[in-house]
Amino acid sequence: MNGRTYDDSMFRDSFEHGYTWLNGFLRNTRRFAERPALIDPETTLRWSYRELNEQANALAHALIQSGVGQGDAVMLVMRNCPAFCVAYIAARKAGAVFFPANFRLSAGELALLMEHNKPKVVLYSQDAKEIVVRSQELSSWNPVLFVMADCIEGSLKECDLPEGHVLYDTYVRGKPACDPVLTFRPHIYDEVVRFCTSGTTSLPKSVPINDINEVLSAHDVIMQYPLNCNDVTMNMTPWFHRGGLHSGGLCPVFYVGACVVVMRKFDPYKALQWLTEYGITFLMGAPTNVEMLCRVQEKESLDLSSLRGIVTMGSALLKDDCLRYMNVLTPNIFNGYGTTETFWNSFLSPRDLPEGAGSAGKSCIDDEVRVVKLYPDKKAEPEEIVPRDGVSEGEIIIFSPEKTAYSYFGDKSLQKEKFYKGWIYTGDTGSWAQDFSMTIKGRKDDMILVSGECIYPLQIEEEICKSDLVGDCLVTSVPDSARGNVLVAYAVPADGCKETLSVDYLRDFTAKSNMLSSYKRPRYFCIVDSLPMTATGKKKHAEMKARALEDLKNGLLKRF
Amino acid sequence: MNGRTYDDSMFRDSFEHGYTWLNGFLRNTRRFAERPALIDPETTLRWSYRELNEQANALAHALIQSGVGQGDAVMLVMRNCPAFCVAYIAARKAGAVFFPANFRLSAGELALLMEHNKPKVVLYSQDAKEIVVRSQELSSWNPVLFVMADCIEGSLKECDLPEGHVLYDTYVRGKPACDPVLTFRPHIYDEVVRFCTSGTTSLPKSVPINDINEVLSAHDVIMQYPLNCNDVTMNMTPWFHRGGLHSGGLCPVFYVGACVVVMRKFDPYKALQWLTEYGITFLMGAPTNVEMLCRVQEKESLDLSSLRGIVTMGSALLKDDCLRYMNVLTPNIFNGYGTTETFWNSFLSPRDLPEGAGSAGKSCIDDEVRVVKLYPDKKAEPEEIVPRDGVSEGEIIIFSPEKTAYSYFGDKSLQKEKFYKGWIYTGDTGSWAQDFSMTIKGRKDDMILVSGECIYPLQIEEEICKSDLVGDCLVTSVPDSARGNVLVAYAVPADGCKETLSVDYLRDFTAKSNMLSSYKRPRYFCIVDSLPMTATGKKKHAEMKARALEDLKNGLLKRF
Repeated sequence: MNGRTYDDSMFRDSFEHGYTWLNGFLRNTRRFAERPALIDPETTLRWSYRELNEQANALAHALIQSGVGQGDAVMLVMRNCPAFCVAYIAARKAGAVFFPANFRLSAGELALLMEHNKPKVVLYSQDAKEIVVRSQELSSWNPVLFVMADCIEGSLKECDLPEGHVLYDTYVRGKPACDPVLTFRPHIYDEVVRFCTSGTTSLPKSVPINDINEVLSAHDVIMQYPLNCNDVTMNMTPWFHRGGLHSGGLCPVFYVGACVVVMRKFDPYKALQWLTEYGITFLMGAPTNVEMLCRVQEKESLDLSSLRGIVTMGSALLKDDCLRYMNVLTPNIFNGYGTTETFWNSFLSPRDLPEGAGSAGKSCIDDEVRVVKLYPDKKAEPEEIVPRDGVSEGEIIIFSPEKTAYSYFGDKSLQKEKFYKGWIYTGDTGSWAQDFSMTIKGRKDDMILVSGECIYPLQIEEEICKSDLVGDCLVTSVPDSARGNVLVAYAVPADGCKETLSVDYLRDFTAKSNMLSSYKRPRYFCIVDSLPMTATGKKKHAEMKARALEDLKNGLLKRF
Repeated sequence: MNGRTYDDSMFRDSFEHGYTWLNGFLRNTRRFAERPALIDPETTLRWSYRELNEQANALAHALIQSGVGQGDAVMLVMRNCPAFCVAYIAARKAGAVFFPANFRLSAGELALLMEHNKPKVVLYSQDAKEIVVRSQELSSWNPVLFVMADCIEGSLKECDLPEGHVLYDTYVRGKPACDPVLTFRPHIYDEVVRFCTSGTTSLPKSVPINDINEVLSAHDVIMQYPLNCNDVTMNMTPWFHRGGLHSGGLCPVFYVGACVVVMRKFDPYKALQWLTEYGITFLMGAPTNVEMLCRVQEKESLDLSSLRGIVTMGSALLKDDCLRYMNVLTPNIFNGYGTTETFWNSFLSPRDLPEGAGSAGKSCIDDEVRVVKLYPDKKAEPEEIVPRDGVSEGEIIIFSPEKTAYSYFGDKSLQKEKFYKGWIYTGDTGSWAQDFSMTIKGRKDDMILVSGECIYPLQIEEEICKSDLVGDCLVTSVPDSARGNVLVAYAVPADGCKETLSVDYLRDFTAKSNMLSSYKRPRYFCIVDSLPMTATGKKKHAEMKARALEDLKNGLLKRF
């Protein structure tokens, strides 16, 4: 009996096996049975914990009848909606892996994802119909069934349903509301969720999350905010992303017994209106979402007193913005930094403010984040840290065994590339200060070598955005015979500044900046209407780099 | 790759393996290297995280040289002191099980505990010398070494050291401050701590705690308080008990990177004085400790503004007391209820107050607590719950897979007796309300049958304590031919009431109570100077029951 101890023979053959996430949810279906789990303002529908569980049971029965069993992927191509929540729980009850795809992928990418992950059943929301049908045609893998859900855009005509597909309501109709019979023995290392996240190939990376990762991700949020059963949260980003599902999204909320408000498409007016209407306590979003909330609030001065915090993640929160949000929205601004593989791993919390504004905070309680040397051709050892002087730049690496499964579904070589000695090598660059607070600079891949000096787009973008005429900005580069590369800046005019913002203005503005040494000044400028962004609000530098080469070739860039 | 996912081949052969508690501590030795981990007011010594780690390394090297290896028990008979903290970490570094015995056990009990657990090394504090030497003589098991630590009672003469024993300072002198070479592969189910807790036999129960239990117990505290790295805590109860080590004690504090203040013997004046001196943010203690703090504060009116909370556990916190502490000490009163096997599992937090005062709160986030039917001869099924009406009484059962190893060291039959279908049957009785809040009544074993009605001592004790003349009270029973049993009340006079409190007064006081129906009124009263208590502040009912029989036989009880 010395040594390893944990006697799981103690458990019945029920879902209540060990400390699974589902166990936490089931507990809440008892103690918070009639309390709200889910509110959908657009349909004005609400689900109590009891009702959500009953619907999850019905869907689980349907999935099992479709042949879904342990380890099978149940794929979603779905906006945030109630069916998403139901499927998140139901998949687990069938022993399956809940696999929410990015609904903004192209049909070709979705087809690749299907071929790689071989889902038994695909659930999609009505507005993803076209893309799903196209991907079905392109894919060599044939799921058993396609189910269309979340039909809120007017009543659906039968003929609208693609051939062979079924409607969600039809699919679950008449299915029992009780737990399905358990045909497997749950284990904390069971894969229960699989995220997809963009990589360097057209096939997105498939990131498995095991059950204990889910529990410990929920703990992380509960510890950091802290979140409790009286909270009402709204994550304004897509739930298919880990920052959507885990940052105050379904995972921690259903585990702690709080309530989720559903937002299908981000709209800052609706967000603040719902905040007052439903007493939302935590809002989660990308910095761009929060920027838009801030602008609305500057005009509307709504009563935001229910708010306990706004949590940003997905990209860096700039210092001036952070201070403005503290002033206009709530003093309790949080910023999390991490990866899809490891959740968030450094965290800026209100007790670090205002001094810490602009940084991504310090390591989370369970994690260790380091900045190590950058080599062009190899990984640094985890011990090869750069000085904690707030200036020296390096690659950010993360040790977070509690929140990662250390693997990729069906890709051993990627595992070898990203993980080393228990650390994930993020490819992000940054610096850290004496107090261990992290500042994110950019991507290792985005790093631009100008006259032998490393430049990260973020710093230049931050400077250009200081102009009142500039709404947003993206910096990339084109090759240059003299300097190796030179910078190209794409700028979006601020509201009402379309007429006044010019490339000459930008040249003068950057030339006057005392933060931009000569080699850091863009040589090309271009005014654009919008910038390409990922679903989670990150600027697509690689895409703009390709465009810059095109624009240069086509003579659309003016050199200074 | 479907199914179970967690690739631990990713880890180096170092302590940083997976998500062990030690991992968290080691992280803190880097990020909080020079911040205080430990303050000992009595010696005015302080240890930073770096220093604590170096001392733990020295002790780990010494233990390994003594032949301590994976799974071996390192036994402590020690008051709260710095060496206790060092050993808590060092044992783990040697792969050993940290086994803090109750230093208040008798020599015979300690000897039995040694024979059962076969410790390689025994560390004890100077003031436990006599009992340790006696137990060494009585025990058939011979540890390799006895080490005397915490010699603060004047300088120690060589001749004071028992033959063959070594001094702690001598034992660790010259040992390296670096990590010992790892000879085992840490695993989350490794037993790392073993508690002893009183049972029904003279051999205390030996309760193993595995590594993941430690991490998740730390999480529980961090989630509930919430505790963070800026906190300074002092647990006023002995750390050898789970409520001492885990409730804001070494386990969560060193995991989150906060600071512990050492108190060897409870003293309410010192506690409040140190609170102001060291900026203590959380105090933990039994309700009796808090009562004494309250009395001091009523006189002294000290500045307690650093305090974020007072956490009580170990026994029920009565309603009137709770309200008084909120008024005098801090509005943030917490009360945890649980078992040594499962930590705390229901929790009353400030957001439940003042309405919830007197209850033990609701299930912890990770746990489920139920009240099930009481059978004289068998366990109820976990589904046989009593109505949630705040009145119906039953046995309290707990589902807490995250914080228990579901076993006893070297006792399979006890495991079978206490655990059933994943639940621990506590033997405690209580009721629960519509909102799931728990009220603890007493022990199943303490339950007294009078005229066929169940009576729990706690309710009667609570009533008697309402008298200003009564300081404390314990109720037990003696057999009675007419009623089966009748109640006996032992009362301690309140300060300054020794002359005025009489058995006649108590008879009248209870007769007038409109909360005590006739059968609930004690028939025998006895005034005593003190009550027998456990080290953690629980009244020893079984001991007093034996005394009541003696007293009755000797004509010391007056019947009304």
